[in-house]
Amino acid sequence: MKALVYHAPRDIRYDDMSEPMIAAPTDAIVRMELSGICGSDLHIYHGPGFSPANGYAVGHEAVGAVVEVGSGVSRLKVGDKVMISAAVGCGRCRSCLAGHVVRCETGGANCYGLSPALQGCQADLIRVPMADFNAAPIPDGLTAEQALMLTDNTPTAWYGCVNAEISPGKTVAVVGLGPIGLIAVEAAFVMGASKVYAIDLVPERRAIAESMGAVPVDGATALAEMGPLTKMKGVDCVVEASGGDVTIAMGLQLAGIGGIVSVIGVNQSPKFDFPMAMAFFKNTTFKIGTCSVQCHWPELVPLVREGRLHPERMITHTMPLSEGAEAYRLFDAREGGALKMVLTATG
Amino acid sequence: MKALVYHAPRDIRYDDMSEPMIAAPTDAIVRMELSGICGSDLHIYHGPGFSPANGYAVGHEAVGAVVEVGSGVSRLKVGDKVMISAAVGCGRCRSCLAGHVVRCETGGANCYGLSPALQGCQADLIRVPMADFNAAPIPDGLTAEQALMLTDNTPTAWYGCVNAEISPGKTVAVVGLGPIGLIAVEAAFVMGASKVYAIDLVPERRAIAESMGAVPVDGATALAEMGPLTKMKGVDCVVEASGGDVTIAMGLQLAGIGGIVSVIGVNQSPKFDFPMAMAFFKNTTFKIGTCSVQCHWPELVPLVREGRLHPERMITHTMPLSEGAEAYRLFDAREGGALKMVLTATG
Amino acid sequence: MKALVYHAPRDIRYDDMSEPMIAAPTDAIVRMELSGICGSDLHIYHGPGFSPANGYAVGHEAVGAVVEVGSGVSRLKVGDKVMISAAVGCGRCRSCLAGHVVRCETGGANCYGLSPALQGCQADLIRVPMADFNAAPIPDGLTAEQALMLTDNTPTAWYGCVNAEISPGKTVAVVGLGPIGLIAVEAAFVMGASKVYAIDLVPERRAIAESMGAVPVDGATALAEMGPLTKMKGVDCVVEASGGDVTIAMGLQLAGIGGIVSVIGVNQSPKFDFPMAMAFFKNTTFKIGTCSVQCHWPELVPLVREGRLHPERMITHTMPLSEGAEAYRLFDAREGGALKMVLTATG
Amino acid sequence: MKALVYHAPRDIRYDDMSEPMIAAPTDAIVRMELSGICGSDLHIYHGPGFSPANGYAVGHEAVGAVVEVGSGVSRLKVGDKVMISAAVGCGRCRSCLAGHVVRCETGGANCYGLSPALQGCQADLIRVPMADFNAAPIPDGLTAEQALMLTDNTPTAWYGCVNAEISPGKTVAVVGLGPIGLIAVEAAFVMGASKVYAIDLVPERRAIAESMGAVPVDGATALAEMGPLTKMKGVDCVVEASGGDVTIAMGLQLAGIGGIVSVIGVNQSPKFDFPMAMAFFKNTTFKIGTCSVQCHWPELVPLVREGRLHPERMITHTMPLSEGAEAYRLFDAREGGALKMVLTATG
Repeated sequence: MKALVYHAPRDIRYDDMSEPMIAAPTDAIVRMELSGICGSDLHIYHGPGFSPANGYAVGHEAVGAVVEVGSGVSRLKVGDKVMISAAVGCGRCRSCLAGHVVRCETGGANCYGLSPALQGCQADLIRVPMADFNAAPIPDGLTAEQALMLTDNTPTAWYGCVNAEISPGKTVAVVGLGPIGLIAVEAAFVMGASKVYAIDLVPERRAIAESMGAVPVDGATALAEMGPLTKMKGVDCVVEASGGDVTIAMGLQLAGIGGIVSVIGVNQSPKFDFPMAMAFFKNTTFKIGTCSVQCHWPELVPLVREGRLHPERMITHTMPLSEGAEAYRLFDAREGGALKMVLTATG
Repeated sequence: MKALVYHAPRDIRYDDMSEPMIAAPTDAIVRMELSGICGSDLHIYHGPGFSPANGYAVGHEAVGAVVEVGSGVSRLKVGDKVMISAAVGCGRCRSCLAGHVVRCETGGANCYGLSPALQGCQADLIRVPMADFNAAPIPDGLTAEQALMLTDNTPTAWYGCVNAEISPGKTVAVVGLGPIGLIAVEAAFVMGASKVYAIDLVPERRAIAESMGAVPVDGATALAEMGPLTKMKGVDCVVEASGGDVTIAMGLQLAGIGGIVSVIGVNQSPKFDFPMAMAFFKNTTFKIGTCSVQCHWPELVPLVREGRLHPERMITHTMPLSEGAEAYRLFDAREGGALKMVLTATG
Repeated sequence: MKALVYHAPRDIRYDDMSEPMIAAPTDAIVRMELSGICGSDLHIYHGPGFSPANGYAVGHEAVGAVVEVGSGVSRLKVGDKVMISAAVGCGRCRSCLAGHVVRCETGGANCYGLSPALQGCQADLIRVPMADFNAAPIPDGLTAEQALMLTDNTPTAWYGCVNAEISPGKTVAVVGLGPIGLIAVEAAFVMGASKVYAIDLVPERRAIAESMGAVPVDGATALAEMGPLTKMKGVDCVVEASGGDVTIAMGLQLAGIGGIVSVIGVNQSPKFDFPMAMAFFKNTTFKIGTCSVQCHWPELVPLVREGRLHPERMITHTMPLSEGAEAYRLFDAREGGALKMVLTATG
Repeated sequence: MKALVYHAPRDIRYDDMSEPMIAAPTDAIVRMELSGICGSDLHIYHGPGFSPANGYAVGHEAVGAVVEVGSGVSRLKVGDKVMISAAVGCGRCRSCLAGHVVRCETGGANCYGLSPALQGCQADLIRVPMADFNAAPIPDGLTAEQALMLTDNTPTAWYGCVNAEISPGKTVAVVGLGPIGLIAVEAAFVMGASKVYAIDLVPERRAIAESMGAVPVDGATALAEMGPLTKMKGVDCVVEASGGDVTIAMGLQLAGIGGIVSVIGVNQSPKFDFPMAMAFFKNTTFKIGTCSVQCHWPELVPLVREGRLHPERMITHTMPLSEGAEAYRLFDAREGGALKMVLTATG
């Protein structure tokens, strides 16, 4: 089969690769139909990503058709169109039961395409472990594109808003307006935010947020502007969707008394300068972590189906898997307004 | 001064009445500018309402200007434009602290205009007890009409939705589409409902709900229609805003497995035929009660100000206080599409 | 093999029965070591219980050793000592995912031993459907008796307390002091209740509750006594663990302003006289339903292991399965202080 | 009158001072009967504390008798025995209504005895602003010592546990076993913790925690010991009651996957080395802040009255106000097992 394979920084190729096989009775094999490129795939593209290895297939967002199931799979059957959760867990351990799938205690790979441990989804065929738990038939009324957006970006944005404890009447700032940040803007309104400030350096991205009803704020001057905008009270809830030290620090500044700062951007600093005195004075809550995708499907599926969330609108480019290398280049360069890239099956 | 005074069933008159005076240091006197007629005022109009007495001023929804304050009032001052909570409490007892203002343990009247114990708001001047707790300056950015809608109807609709535990992705049925039911439809969407079924016998009211995004369902055939509409699963949350035995029973039927039925309509049956076996089978939660208006202002003020809730759109008629008798007649007869009646100061 | 088989009212016999076999890849077969007799088993004993059938094995509480697993079972292996949840679900449908296992949408039997659809646990061998979801290895540090008490009674008592929204500082009344009611008394304290009133007609049962720290109240005079005891304020939370119309009505009386009444007793009345006017005045919440056992294991296992809950103390009699008929007779007659009966494998 | 007055580091004297007077209609004057010395008073004792000023009365924990009330005080009357909340707010602004009394937006002093802005409670007479909100009659059934412990230490410990989201079955670590940390140990059990690890360098303090049911852990070796004790899983909830950078860092280490770290110790670092990569990996929640005392009285009063919490057991020394200087010296030196010091009225 064919797959996008990581060789070296900025060298991802459309290569031949051996086909995956059922390795446990609970596995399923899925023929990819659509696969997204996620912002975190650029960590790999820039190298060395999350593993020193190379030669593995990348990608962790996909929908497709089941072509084989192990004897222990009871919920999926051959032919089912399925969406695959980027978060991979056993569904049975203490972490999974507590909704921390991405930190499953069984020690398996917790995501596709980060290392050779679990081959990526930007491939013709995908092996899905514990398939009953980690994939689900695409619900009636969802398009394939909508389902694809439910495999990572939408649940991550949602999780960021849930962690920020957004509830009706709250004021919200979203820092960083990539696809996840923009979905967070829409999600904040679904959760009842009275006002959403959308902060980014890129005017085009702010314009999209504004079209959703948010107040656009230039990231370069946000700290100065947000004081008067909030009558010096700051906001109740901050969703940080960028992951930089600077943007996290901004989030902590923007939170008002009793405010909550929720970080969904990837930040791997061993030591971040946390403004403890300010947090103490403001009674701040700070949360960071990654999303257990499938745990959010029960509420997200009806919201997408009924048109209350439109994550599919983030998709700006659809290209065949065979042109994956070019897709990565465009996405990395943000050429042509590239926001969300989707790859289609070759064959 | 002048006030609308209850004399006998269907006999409410624009009468002279002695002016209220400061009776405790925590009182304030407010000159009425707008006063609403509530559905529950019709209980009084039809007689005998909530008290066997007569000769008292009616009405419990008003905004106006403070004209006098007692020495113990610290939050309001003469000249302030204020909104007055229909729920009256001391703000200090166990019930008030737990958010059950309307059941204040100090034993005072818990609402205006239900008896002579606390004269009504459909009057030139209103005495507000414990004014710091039971009234508030109209927040910047709200019109007088919006503030008026925050004195009872909007918080009651909101409380019904809170009690129904509406959260993002849930399906909701609202039974009864008077002003409160219609506001509940809008509120359910603000809380993230994926779908709202709006049930009433009156086509015009269903049409308003439909314009808000709800699925209109004729109350006469609702039980039969809702099965197929919900794929026989019922809804997650029911808000009953009518108060009849039949509509409460319908709400209990419509709730699905684990569903919640929240009644905000007034029902005074000593014995209601509760379908216990069905509730046991469905793990039903049932709630009923009245709203502690001022407890919901913190979240409702920003939602109304930012245009996420539009309760002022319920207002169909505005008439001078002096024509109050005719206003009651129109409202009772539902003439001219009467939905929400507002009375203005005579001048 | 041998099993306790229902033949007719008050006729449960220790009979030969065909051994269960793996019917689906997700099944497991468990050799029973301990099986409890539940209060709801008496519904069957008195006949006709939950089904018009006869000739089926009864019982829904058991621990034992896995003797065979289907190819799709991944969490259990032969030889594991396991506890079996009385609630049986698929773990995948909307109801199961929402924690309503007992109302699983797949339409299978939701419990053992209620009809021939799923043979009971008072038998040498037990077929467990969807075994990964409906059974679990007995956690380290638990005795077999403690694990047995986690298969139904303890989670049901806990669920009743969760539904009653018991939290630190609340006052609680538990109505009905069978094993489940008594565990609810202990659970209420674990949840932080400041005071627990334990109500029953039987002095011995009240004495056990008193030894747990509760205030014992005679059921015959409870309504009269509870007024002065609570300074006429009623209690915050009621757990009804009996199921009679009279005791549910008592629970509704005992709830104070904003109180919550949680019924875990079985009540199948098509029409219960619900005091709507009183509930309206008190802003009452009412809940009824059955427990999804395995959903509560994450919090209950550590509480039992660390000695904060002692459900095993409810066990008054341990008898061999072969003497099951006599065990039922004793339990039904409440002879010898029979509270919780446990049957052991015949050997 | 007499008061303990701060002059310079380690120089607090029993001095003459002018008597306080009613300055606003909402004020009350209280004659002190008992006043506690809090750990945070040592910040002042060590100088310069929270203000560069000197010559002001110190102390923020007191109970006493009302001797005068302004005309706007409705809940208290002369002669009432009252407990005074260390947190001072208006009870009306956005922060107070949201439960952040200590960050009241009206800009008044938020605590007694931190500066001349609001004179301290270690004095014969105390002026209480907004007395209806900031003090309450001592509830029936509480001793004066119990009430005193409700003016700061117990609510602060409780708030730390609430912030740590302790719920039934959770495992907890309390870092720092001063009076507040020890009360947090007891509070954690009231909230249903299955296991509490109590960490401090001082063996006597660990012994007290052990007597409450906690597992004592030496602070010097805690990081090494807690791994095996928790099977390398860490704990669910951490309450940090010391405030040092080292102990906060320890708390972040001890939290398991999805764990919550709640800091109630005072930490004023402008930059704390936050282990962001570790927090990201563990999905950590971090909270810090100060307690809005009076907001926790509704649940704490019944818990103390019913003997579920025993904060009065922390009191090791009771001395007259006139010996306040010596009391501070003993407390600072931890002589004689000094844990909680209480000063009595001189008479």
